[in-house]
Amino acid sequence: MAEHRLPGDIERSSMQIIRQEIAGLGVTLKEENAPVILRVIHATADFAYLETLTFSPKAAALASEALTKGTPIVTDTNMALSGVSRPGLKKLGGEAFCFMADPAVAEKAKRDGTTRAVAAMRHAAETLPGAILAVGNAPTALFQIAEEIEAGLRPALVVAVPVGFVNVVESKERIVSVCRKHNVPVIAAMGRKGGSSVAAAILNALIYSAADLLDPAARGWN
Amino acid sequence: MAEHRLPGDIERSSMQIIRQEIAGLGVTLKEENAPVILRVIHATADFAYLETLTFSPKAAALASEALTKGTPIVTDTNMALSGVSRPGLKKLGGEAFCFMADPAVAEKAKRDGTTRAVAAMRHAAETLPGAILAVGNAPTALFQIAEEIEAGLRPALVVAVPVGFVNVVESKERIVSVCRKHNVPVIAAMGRKGGSSVAAAILNALIYSAADLLDPAARGWN
Repeated sequence: MAEHRLPGDIERSSMQIIRQEIAGLGVTLKEENAPVILRVIHATADFAYLETLTFSPKAAALASEALTKGTPIVTDTNMALSGVSRPGLKKLGGEAFCFMADPAVAEKAKRDGTTRAVAAMRHAAETLPGAILAVGNAPTALFQIAEEIEAGLRPALVVAVPVGFVNVVESKERIVSVCRKHNVPVIAAMGRKGGSSVAAAILNALIYSAADLLDPAARGWN
Repeated sequence: MAEHRLPGDIERSSMQIIRQEIAGLGVTLKEENAPVILRVIHATADFAYLETLTFSPKAAALASEALTKGTPIVTDTNMALSGVSRPGLKKLGGEAFCFMADPAVAEKAKRDGTTRAVAAMRHAAETLPGAILAVGNAPTALFQIAEEIEAGLRPALVVAVPVGFVNVVESKERIVSVCRKHNVPVIAAMGRKGGSSVAAAILNALIYSAADLLDPAARGWN
């Protein structure tokens, strides 16, 4: 019965279907970005990301390389954090964090009269300055990262995929422009769409690519 | 500055924009389903859900009513669980669970030669038979719930929103048909789209509606 196929089989079939449908749309993916794009479409069943996902030069390769060296990941929501492949990251010697529920961060937000999302990203900038910063929810977190980059922060990568209707489009345009100016790698989903699932999908694609770099013999179909 | 608006303000503006754009599309929402539909579009920025979200008669009202009585929620992924409003649920005296990472469930899956998703839903059926069951990821979990319903299980609601390309469409059609046959409330996103964010958005809309039922004076804009 169909429902008794193994998860690995199903994932492989899914990726084949996605590749076929992309080809059917007449789109050719840039091979270095393909793992990220495929995994986002796998997580959303939304081919609109073919048009909206944007990569600074070599962003995916640089981020995968950084992950092989144990670069930590910071997400803006616990939901995105929950979606990150812990076993995958652990094999790389890396770790993922979200500071949204950190009581010290909540306290700081209150004291500074700002949101927890902003305070959490300030905290990340202070404590893990070379991390991969992933935003799937709060445009304010993205504006904060942009400010920090202007002030000298150099994250290994910014994943800029908040979802929504207010300030979201603007926050992505701002971070992409600031990252370009300061030569910081960025992967963004332009427009309104995105979310914690999209952030997690991008991070997992990079984690799996990093694992392939460390152990090319185990290289999968991804 | 735009980035300094409070999260509550931004959410209110977002919902207004979504309502306006839905009206602009010439669509009139059934008022009882509106909170769920609006929150899913808020979480995805994807108006395709206007066409795909399906509700059995009074599903949202019945589920909100159940939540006011402390009915527990079971999700198929920790990611969906992370997205559920814990403070909201706590006010209702409810609790949310995911059994995917439960070592006993992993053991059972191995013993029974099945997936953890299936074993986790079996475990939910055994231990929390009247719960709200939410599936944002694994079609196998949905097939399992359909089997359990055929065998007599009566969940308070099934949220059927897995995302993907293999077995996903079929799993939703099956659960909707089984739920209809046995008079079990169901909310489904037909087609390929869905995901943990969508599951969490639906659950949160129901949680907020339940809070409104308990305290109409505090009724929000939702």
